[in-house]
Amino acid sequence: MAGDEDTNRLYQESLDLHEKYKGKIEISPKVPLETSRDLARAYTPGVAAVCRAIARDHELAYRYTLKANTVAIVTDGSAVLGLGNIGGYAAIPVMEGKALLFKMFAGIDAFPLCFESYQTDFVDQVRNIAPVFGGINLEDIAAPKCFEVEEALQDIGIPVMHDDQHGTAITVLAALLNACTVTGKDFSDLRIVVSGAGAAGYAIVRLLKCIGYSPDVCQHVREILVCDRQGIIHRNRKGLYANKYKFILADETNQERRMGGLADALEGADVFIGVSAPDLVTGAMIRAMNDDPIVFAMANPVPEVMPDVALAAGAAVVGTGRSDYPNQINNALAFPGVFRGALDAHARVINDEMKVAAAHALARYVESPVKDRIMPLVLDRGVVQAVATAVSEAARYSGAARDIG
Amino acid sequence: MAGDEDTNRLYQESLDLHEKYKGKIEISPKVPLETSRDLARAYTPGVAAVCRAIARDHELAYRYTLKANTVAIVTDGSAVLGLGNIGGYAAIPVMEGKALLFKMFAGIDAFPLCFESYQTDFVDQVRNIAPVFGGINLEDIAAPKCFEVEEALQDIGIPVMHDDQHGTAITVLAALLNACTVTGKDFSDLRIVVSGAGAAGYAIVRLLKCIGYSPDVCQHVREILVCDRQGIIHRNRKGLYANKYKFILADETNQERRMGGLADALEGADVFIGVSAPDLVTGAMIRAMNDDPIVFAMANPVPEVMPDVALAAGAAVVGTGRSDYPNQINNALAFPGVFRGALDAHARVINDEMKVAAAHALARYVESPVKDRIMPLVLDRGVVQAVATAVSEAARYSGAARDIG
Repeated sequence: MAGDEDTNRLYQESLDLHEKYKGKIEISPKVPLETSRDLARAYTPGVAAVCRAIARDHELAYRYTLKANTVAIVTDGSAVLGLGNIGGYAAIPVMEGKALLFKMFAGIDAFPLCFESYQTDFVDQVRNIAPVFGGINLEDIAAPKCFEVEEALQDIGIPVMHDDQHGTAITVLAALLNACTVTGKDFSDLRIVVSGAGAAGYAIVRLLKCIGYSPDVCQHVREILVCDRQGIIHRNRKGLYANKYKFILADETNQERRMGGLADALEGADVFIGVSAPDLVTGAMIRAMNDDPIVFAMANPVPEVMPDVALAAGAAVVGTGRSDYPNQINNALAFPGVFRGALDAHARVINDEMKVAAAHALARYVESPVKDRIMPLVLDRGVVQAVATAVSEAARYSGAARDIG
Repeated sequence: MAGDEDTNRLYQESLDLHEKYKGKIEISPKVPLETSRDLARAYTPGVAAVCRAIARDHELAYRYTLKANTVAIVTDGSAVLGLGNIGGYAAIPVMEGKALLFKMFAGIDAFPLCFESYQTDFVDQVRNIAPVFGGINLEDIAAPKCFEVEEALQDIGIPVMHDDQHGTAITVLAALLNACTVTGKDFSDLRIVVSGAGAAGYAIVRLLKCIGYSPDVCQHVREILVCDRQGIIHRNRKGLYANKYKFILADETNQERRMGGLADALEGADVFIGVSAPDLVTGAMIRAMNDDPIVFAMANPVPEVMPDVALAAGAAVVGTGRSDYPNQINNALAFPGVFRGALDAHARVINDEMKVAAAHALARYVESPVKDRIMPLVLDRGVVQAVATAVSEAARYSGAARDIG
């Protein structure tokens, strides 16, 4: 099959590239190092003055060190790409690749840390590396550990964001805002079905339901149903208490306590959001949705339903995670600007206000959304600054920003 | 005082430099990122092939990732410069400065990690970050914790070296070899006094006594006496069992069980090695040493005895830690080449054979040692390669090197 040949060729090129460069990032000096005076300023003995200042006030690390512009990309390798729990070593190439995106899109210095989990608690581990970093991007960590870890780290004084959750959720919210504009649907009237109750699914629901933040920064959608492999999540499902996060989903969604499978859920729904698996949705299921249905089928690389099938069945707007179809809904649109904005504000956290602001900025960036263009292009260099400015402002008005001397 | 004015001016320049650049290092891409194909090779989806290969064989991280050339500079900030236990935040500027030296001298990508110690065990912490790194440079950790930590980390599969110990010890051994050449003293006949039983003192004694490695790579010196604040360390000292490392020193040195202070120790000694405090040694104490005494007074910035005093009292060779006197004995001569050699050999450890090889390479680098030139200059760019080659070879013949596919 030609597709396989193409893929295999790309894999071989990737192996060759990695073998040639042995590392995709390097550390470069930013300061002049020509004279011995230069060295005396950048290192001993001059540096002692800087150390003493920071010892008196840790916040000065933002003024004097790499903390101002540096993010750790942290993983335990438990859910890497579609490859599963391949561990810290095998995760390195992905985290290095992510560091490239951080630099390319947002000028952020990101360093990959791939933990092997011995005795040490993951949360303590991340907590202890905080001094050097202005933010932590959690990456490719399996659910539900990713929720627990992120939650436990919200008090460490720098923003900790699991991108697989919130990068995706922000981008989906942006896409949904513009899809409403295109279809004339009212956001607060939407009935939404989310397929997938993992990291992305959970974060999408939280953002669309505005759980945990004030009503003035967010409209609620009317109703969300979440489907996992067992069907619609509802409060009476057996064994729900075993997973705190599924319990929260059950509690916050499906107020009518509907039961059944994905096909049942989609009857009369306005929006399908897929962060699950290939080929779960048929044309018939889309025809059973409300008028002008919105379909975001983001399973990668094969979506829940192919765009041509969805469009033929009457979908008004279709988005996927792929760059070879219109309306790519990709978290690369969100995380660079979100972290840029958080670093610029010396933020303590990335809160819901900042996420909502990022989504609105992303949506607004598309001046006149139409069916085939509800999202900015990933390679559009203006996106990051637009998102960063909105996130920075939100950090300030929501009280997440620091005032550094 | 003019000296103070100079120092204050340097401190202000250092603060200004740090404020201007907000970080002395940055992360730069090494790979081409012009086209979407470039990105598909460096990141998803191409990178999946690299991940799968490393998942099968972790050693391939050396072939395909930054591990091949990357060192972590790890501290808990417990003994930073002469500033004491100022913590992880205040240590950042020093560790960033060290990263500059790694890159400048040895082309090594070094990243600073400054831990705050909460519940997590330091050893587990370092163990868990190992996947990304080809080596760990422990830095500015107080004794005796530095010994325990380094010892506990020798099995993690990558070299872990506390530079304050071994960088110093290697450089001292090199200086001593050439000082013997200059004075015509026989290395195996030397009576040595070490002032200071901290990180550097302990490592110097271990290297000069060749504790723990085979006799064919090392000659023993005749005798070493170690002095700390209480005087000569001897086996009958009270409370010695409280500190395992002082006990080892007592056991391995001072076979004659001499007692007394530094002045007593120096009577008849061939060599003084100071890694302690300013102004401990007088001209009279040097005159009481053996003929042609060798004096390495390395307390910083004020040595145990000033070179002019030592020379006037008859010292045959004098070295200090300072760049403004001849014979600077500075660990910047050792660590870049040691880590370069260890990385080149994909070494599992930095063993004693590698340290001894580094010292001999450093000594040999000075073609014809004379009184005022027993050490290479720190800024001589040829030093690193000479040391690295010797260390790499030693890693291979001692079995520390890996054979990567």
